[in-house]
Amino acid sequence: MEDKEISQAVISRLPRYFRYLGELRDEGVERISSQELSELMHVTASQIRQDFNNFGGFGQQGYGYNVDYLYHEIAKILGLNQTHSFIIVGAGNLGRALGNYLNFERRGFLFKGIFDENPDLVGTSVRGVCVKPMEELEQFIHENDIEIAVLTIPKTGAIAVADRLVNNGIRAIWNFAHVDLSLPEGIQVENVHLSDSLMKLSYNITKFSKEKNQG
Amino acid sequence: MEDKEISQAVISRLPRYFRYLGELRDEGVERISSQELSELMHVTASQIRQDFNNFGGFGQQGYGYNVDYLYHEIAKILGLNQTHSFIIVGAGNLGRALGNYLNFERRGFLFKGIFDENPDLVGTSVRGVCVKPMEELEQFIHENDIEIAVLTIPKTGAIAVADRLVNNGIRAIWNFAHVDLSLPEGIQVENVHLSDSLMKLSYNITKFSKEKNQG
Repeated sequence: MEDKEISQAVISRLPRYFRYLGELRDEGVERISSQELSELMHVTASQIRQDFNNFGGFGQQGYGYNVDYLYHEIAKILGLNQTHSFIIVGAGNLGRALGNYLNFERRGFLFKGIFDENPDLVGTSVRGVCVKPMEELEQFIHENDIEIAVLTIPKTGAIAVADRLVNNGIRAIWNFAHVDLSLPEGIQVENVHLSDSLMKLSYNITKFSKEKNQG
Repeated sequence: MEDKEISQAVISRLPRYFRYLGELRDEGVERISSQELSELMHVTASQIRQDFNNFGGFGQQGYGYNVDYLYHEIAKILGLNQTHSFIIVGAGNLGRALGNYLNFERRGFLFKGIFDENPDLVGTSVRGVCVKPMEELEQFIHENDIEIAVLTIPKTGAIAVADRLVNNGIRAIWNFAHVDLSLPEGIQVENVHLSDSLMKLSYNITKFSKEKNQG
């Protein structure tokens, strides 16, 4: 496959294709046309073909795509044919919820450790993994070859902790702290700002009520 | 203010402006130019001016914007000058974590109820709110004038529950279930597909390693 630059917009759509193809596969569907996939996913067939052409088109011929092939190709592109070890920094409610989420394991994301600075939380367990003190962070990352850190701490400490993680070899941060991280090139960051998402919802409710009241 | 159609891309950026302005305000900054805001937020000044022009421009004159005024105007646009009552459907780890998150309250989102079909969870408490059985859902929505439902249940039941919510007057769904909801016009949906976000991270790690190996 050519390694041309693919836009983050296309990348953002890949997990959704992967999800639909997984469901089709579970239902025993063997082939699907871009038109059928388009109707199922409520996107245009042309969008689908354009997206797939970024990866060589996945050989649609005769009657559509081979579902199983397409599913595995997209999995490979997403790096899901490998395992990725992760730790969680912040053993509060959200950190514990993410640690308990088994679906990540199914996709090859392995929950290896969880850390917190609160001594009351240290020693408690999340899905069999014992919460460790922050002092053990560096050594743990090195000894366990950790690739991804999930950051679920308040924004005040987040930037300093992110720097510590990166200095010790973490390659990607899944950031739930409500602050933007500015990290060296090559370090991947994916932000999940939950409040931002809720505010967007609030905007759309407010706007819709106004429009309704105006007739 | 004119009620022209504003793109969801612009809307998506508003919470981030709101966050930065809130921080500037907390630091006692009174005025800021689009250039300074641009450097702080790592977006172009032209982008900022274009975004703000959708809402009449917020009267930048002389030396930049009035931080406090801008903060409150954006809050109003986002509907944060009103309160919104919400319930959580699904009292598993994620549902409980969201119920415990106090910051939502600060923004006017009031946590009123939480529901689960699991009898072992019914009767337990999340931040003083008692988990109720699903049978009480309809009545509770009506009696408490609930606007928003947070959906934190597995995807298998999500579509049926979303329909129940909408039929009983819920106007917006914050959807964490790993499925796309197709709901009547006028019902707002904001999806947080956590696995999708993690897969995007995985893609970027994988791609970066390949590029590095290729030199």
